[in-house]
Amino acid sequence: MKRFKLTLSYDGTQFFGFQRQKSKEIRTIQGVLEERLSQLLNETIIIHGSGRTDSGVHAMGQVIHFDTNRHIPAEQLQYALLRNLPRDLVIIAVEEVTKDFHARKSSCGKWYRYQLYNGQRPHAIGHMYWSHEPQAIDDQKLQAALKPLIGYHHFQGFCGRGATVDTFERTIFLADFYRQEEKIIFHFIGDGFLRKMVRNIVGTVLDMATGRKKEDLIENALISGDRREGGATAPPEGLFLEKVFYDVAEMKEQIEILQNFILQKKHK
Amino acid sequence: MKRFKLTLSYDGTQFFGFQRQKSKEIRTIQGVLEERLSQLLNETIIIHGSGRTDSGVHAMGQVIHFDTNRHIPAEQLQYALLRNLPRDLVIIAVEEVTKDFHARKSSCGKWYRYQLYNGQRPHAIGHMYWSHEPQAIDDQKLQAALKPLIGYHHFQGFCGRGATVDTFERTIFLADFYRQEEKIIFHFIGDGFLRKMVRNIVGTVLDMATGRKKEDLIENALISGDRREGGATAPPEGLFLEKVFYDVAEMKEQIEILQNFILQKKHK
Repeated sequence: MKRFKLTLSYDGTQFFGFQRQKSKEIRTIQGVLEERLSQLLNETIIIHGSGRTDSGVHAMGQVIHFDTNRHIPAEQLQYALLRNLPRDLVIIAVEEVTKDFHARKSSCGKWYRYQLYNGQRPHAIGHMYWSHEPQAIDDQKLQAALKPLIGYHHFQGFCGRGATVDTFERTIFLADFYRQEEKIIFHFIGDGFLRKMVRNIVGTVLDMATGRKKEDLIENALISGDRREGGATAPPEGLFLEKVFYDVAEMKEQIEILQNFILQKKHK
Repeated sequence: MKRFKLTLSYDGTQFFGFQRQKSKEIRTIQGVLEERLSQLLNETIIIHGSGRTDSGVHAMGQVIHFDTNRHIPAEQLQYALLRNLPRDLVIIAVEEVTKDFHARKSSCGKWYRYQLYNGQRPHAIGHMYWSHEPQAIDDQKLQAALKPLIGYHHFQGFCGRGATVDTFERTIFLADFYRQEEKIIFHFIGDGFLRKMVRNIVGTVLDMATGRKKEDLIENALISGDRREGGATAPPEGLFLEKVFYDVAEMKEQIEILQNFILQKKHK
């Protein structure tokens, strides 16, 4: 038996999220991928993702693993998948891994990006990649709102309903943004993220930075652990799962690169 | 009676082209726009576009006009449309114009952009905005292939089937491209373009620049006027209608700006 690790990118617009649904009519990442893999390998394939992404959320580097009894080389599998997947789901890498690798359990962190268009009139082109915030944003308030999130916290106040997790404790290593005229790009790196956590964080800091809410919603939600103390949930279309980390040193290096990159962008 | 000129941008992915179809089930730009305008103005509105775009083709600045008996100010109409159109169809400008303005007949030229991704593996993100050419492209061959298109020519050899036009004579003022690593951006400005003309030009020059075809397909199609002498039709997803011109001086200025811009990009 072989275990494969797949790295994939997808445009979430036309998918009803990552997780397979009971009805085959509902198009999901897991559903499409399992169907094609099962066809290609001529056996029932069950995939395990690093985590789920919601409907409309994109991925640059989602990771999954699966087991197969077929003795197919990784390159051959990658080539076959390249020709057999729809245009909005692309395999970036196929690697054979040992049995102790697990896409979710072996992961030591994740990197998310959130793209916001802060112009008055929305754009038609790219509307599935940029969420739209027409109200003026105070960048200094935004920076101040993000700051207390960094570190080890109880994040239940930013967790969506129906999450089944052992613990709400997570560590955020990086929560920052930069602006390019009317575009705002957020980056988040942490050891893990709860259900809708990034969207709840972005929605909350925007409520504060636009002045829609006067209270310190971030502090309130962090202290109370109550989602109702936080702000809105930002829409899914701006969110990208950039990368899943399996190596702490690589993650640390990435955090440093990204911090310098954002710093440069801020001082331009 | 008032005549309005509307400038609009749309993401063509979820539209079955510009032109209204008999079945209301088929979503088109004209269909959606006429329905919303008729509702807003409480009378049957018929719109006239500068031209049609195919299914999957996008627009940054399509222009249409229509007449109404309502005495609504342009700003009020724009505001109402901003709130009443789907996210993939955005009104950029609303102007009241005189009765001699006609979106198609008054136009003196058009500007198209075509986006090509020339990497081996396709990208999932942005797949509806970039057509994918995995074969290596010889940029010098591409440049040479585009050159003879500039000027006044009989373009029947680049015209799609079913076009009802008086003449196949058109003048192309600018047909050029630049490369940014694996991305190639084409620009075309002309006094008018026939059905599928830009896509047929791009498909043909790519057949030549990749070496898929050895003959001089551009010369052959220009001389013979026979579409079968040309190359493939490039897919719709890379094509953007950038702007419709109604003022020759403005168009000339735009050509000069664009020529300089492309020159700069080439010498980077």
